[in-house]
Amino acid sequence: MAAAEWWLECDSCGRQTESSELAACANCGEATVIRYAALPQTLASPNTSGIWRYRDWLPIAAQTAPISLGEGETPIVRLDRWAGQIGLRRVYAKLEFAGPTGSFKDRGAAVLVTHCVESGARVIIEDSSGNAGAALAAYAARAGLECKVFAPAATPAAKLHQVRVCGATVVTVAGDREDVAIAAQAAARSGHRGDYYAGHNSNPYFVEGMKSFAFELAEHREAGVVDHVVMPVGGGSLYCGAALGFGQMRQAGLRAAHPRMHLVQAAACMPIVAAFDRHEDRPPPVQPSPSIAGGILIANPPRGRMILRILGESDGSAVAVTEEEILAAQTAVARLEGISMEPTSAAAFAGLARLARSGAVGPDEVVVVPVTGSGLKDQMAVSNARP
Amino acid sequence: MAAAEWWLECDSCGRQTESSELAACANCGEATVIRYAALPQTLASPNTSGIWRYRDWLPIAAQTAPISLGEGETPIVRLDRWAGQIGLRRVYAKLEFAGPTGSFKDRGAAVLVTHCVESGARVIIEDSSGNAGAALAAYAARAGLECKVFAPAATPAAKLHQVRVCGATVVTVAGDREDVAIAAQAAARSGHRGDYYAGHNSNPYFVEGMKSFAFELAEHREAGVVDHVVMPVGGGSLYCGAALGFGQMRQAGLRAAHPRMHLVQAAACMPIVAAFDRHEDRPPPVQPSPSIAGGILIANPPRGRMILRILGESDGSAVAVTEEEILAAQTAVARLEGISMEPTSAAAFAGLARLARSGAVGPDEVVVVPVTGSGLKDQMAVSNARP
Repeated sequence: MAAAEWWLECDSCGRQTESSELAACANCGEATVIRYAALPQTLASPNTSGIWRYRDWLPIAAQTAPISLGEGETPIVRLDRWAGQIGLRRVYAKLEFAGPTGSFKDRGAAVLVTHCVESGARVIIEDSSGNAGAALAAYAARAGLECKVFAPAATPAAKLHQVRVCGATVVTVAGDREDVAIAAQAAARSGHRGDYYAGHNSNPYFVEGMKSFAFELAEHREAGVVDHVVMPVGGGSLYCGAALGFGQMRQAGLRAAHPRMHLVQAAACMPIVAAFDRHEDRPPPVQPSPSIAGGILIANPPRGRMILRILGESDGSAVAVTEEEILAAQTAVARLEGISMEPTSAAAFAGLARLARSGAVGPDEVVVVPVTGSGLKDQMAVSNARP
Repeated sequence: MAAAEWWLECDSCGRQTESSELAACANCGEATVIRYAALPQTLASPNTSGIWRYRDWLPIAAQTAPISLGEGETPIVRLDRWAGQIGLRRVYAKLEFAGPTGSFKDRGAAVLVTHCVESGARVIIEDSSGNAGAALAAYAARAGLECKVFAPAATPAAKLHQVRVCGATVVTVAGDREDVAIAAQAAARSGHRGDYYAGHNSNPYFVEGMKSFAFELAEHREAGVVDHVVMPVGGGSLYCGAALGFGQMRQAGLRAAHPRMHLVQAAACMPIVAAFDRHEDRPPPVQPSPSIAGGILIANPPRGRMILRILGESDGSAVAVTEEEILAAQTAVARLEGISMEPTSAAAFAGLARLARSGAVGPDEVVVVPVTGSGLKDQMAVSNARP
C-alpha cells in the first residue's frame, strides 16, 4: 500500500486532518480514526506471523520494517467448566496476556511504535495506568527510541517496574487518570521536535493494532461464527479496534461475523454504561471511586462517542459489575479453568455472567471474552483485596 | 498411536519398567525416559494447534482429549541490538513466557496432566520452586483434579500466589530444594490411591511436552538451521526434552538441525558445570549459595547423567555465570530489545555472552535462547537485588 491510501478522520463529525499526532478532532473533540481508500481482498499475507500477517490492513508503508516482539496469534481456549456454571455451552477465552509484555496492549504498541519510527519520532510520551505504558516502553526500547510514561501515583508496582526495566522514564502524577493524560499532553507540547504524544486512549495508530484481534477470530475455525464479544472497557482501544476490524472485513466483502459487541465497566467508574442506560450519545461526567479494576477507570474516555456508536450499531449491551462480582469471577475462572487474570480482565467475565442471567446471551451462542492482562500484573491488588 | 507403542526406560542403564509413576530407575537411580517403537513420518498433524500439533509424537492415546490452555507456538524474535553488543549477528529469543502461566513449564504440564487424567490420577503432588508449580496448578484446575505443590519457603510470593489462585494447596518446606522433593515424594507414598507424584525434575511425561520446543524450531523458517541452543539448566526438563525432540526428528529421517546444546548455571549452584569441567559423567554433590536465579538452584538434578550425556553428544558447553552477570544481561536485553525476563532466564543470555567472548559461538552462527520465564514472575527478587 502507498501512503496516499489512508487518512485521519474524526469518527464523529468526519473532519479530515493531515496531522499524525492528532489526539482529538479540532472541530468536535472526538477521537480520530484511520480511513482507507481501498481494502485488501485477502486477510493474511503469506510468510508473515503475528499481527503482521495483516499488514496490508495497517497504515504502515510496505517498505517499513515492523517493530515486533512476536505479538498476536494469542491462544483461544474453550471454557466448558466455568461456562457450565453460568448456563452457557460455547464460551471461548482469548488469552491476550500471552504475549511479549503480558497484555493486549502489545498489538497496539507494535503498530504505534512502528509508525513513530516511520514518522521520525525520537521520544514517545504516553500516559497509562500500567499495561499500555509497559507495552510502549518495551517496543520503544526495541526500536531504540526514548520513552516517557506518565502514570497515576496508585499504579501497581509490577506495572511500573515493567516500564522502568525497559529503560523508560516514569513520571507519576497525583490526581485522577485524566490529570495524568493532561500532564503528558502538556509535556509533549512543550517539548522538542521529535516528541510524540502517543496517548493510547486517543491515538488512532494504537487502535489499528487492535484490529488484528477481530482478524484472528475470523481465522479461527470455531470462533469465526462468533455471536457475542464481551470486553472490559475503559478507554476502549480493543473494543473500537475489534469493531473496526470486523467492519472492514465486511466492507471488503470477506466472510466475517457481525458479533454483538458487549462492554463491561466497574460500577466504580461507568461513564459508558450511564450513557447507554440513558440512551445518550456521549458519556456524562462521572466521579470514579477506587476499584481493583485499575485498567478501566477512565472517567472521561476520549473515544466515548465512538464506543457508544459501536454499541448501538452492533446491538450490544453495556453492563456494570461490582468489586465483589469481579473478585468472584476472577476466582471462579482460575479454579475451574486454570486461567489467572488481573481484576480488570475478570470484570468481563463477571459481565458475561450477568448477560447470561438476563438472557442477552443464549446458552448455545458463541461468546468470546479476551483475557486482557495477566494475573501476574496486579498481584498486589489481588493480595490486598482478598483476605 | 496405540498404548503398546511406547514404554518407560532408564536413560542410563536401559532398564524397562511398567510403572507410570516412576521417579527414578530402581536399578541405578537415574531418571526414566519414554522410548517409542516407531516414530511418525511427518511433524505436525492437520487441524491442531500449539504443542498438540505434534501429538503423534507424544505418549498420549489418540482418543484422549488434551488438557490444554493453548500452550506452545511461542514467538521467535531476532535480537539485533543486544546481539550486536556481544559481537553476534543471528541470535533469536524464543519467548517461552508468552503462554498460559508465563513460563516454558506449560508445555510439560499440559502433557503430564493429560497423562494423569488418562491414567486415573485424582491428586497431583508436585515439588517446585515456582514456575512448574504454577503450571501444574493451572492445568490440574483445568482438568478438575486436586493439586498439592510443595515449595521452598523462599519461593517468590508471585509464584505461590499463582498456585493458590488456581485452588491448589501450597505446602512450604524448610531446607533446600532437595528436601522439598523428598517431602513431596513422602506425601505421595503415604497417601491414597489416586495420588500421583508429578515431580517435574524426574517425570518423563513432563519432559515429553518439552520436545515441542525443538519441533517448533524445526518448523521455523530461519531457526530451522540452528547451530546453537543456549539454556539455563537446573533440573534440565527443557534441555533434555529439546534434545529428545531433535534426536527423534533425526531418527525419523526428518530434516532437522543437530545444534550444539549449551547450558548455563548460576555460579551459586553449578553441579553440571562442575562435572563437565572435570570430565565426569555424573554431577558431584554441591552446596548451593543463595542466588537470584531461583529456578535453576537444583543441587542434585535427578537427570544429571542424561544432561551430561546430551552435553557430550551435542558438543555443547556448560558455563557458570555470576549474579552480576545475570543482572547485567537482564538489564541489557530489556533496554536494548524490550524483553523483560526473570533472572533465571537472564542467566542464559549471560552465558551466551561468555560463549561469544570465548569463540565457542561464531559471529554468523544461528543461536536460539529460550526466555523461560516472564519478568513479572520474580519482581521481588529483581527489585531487591537492584538498588
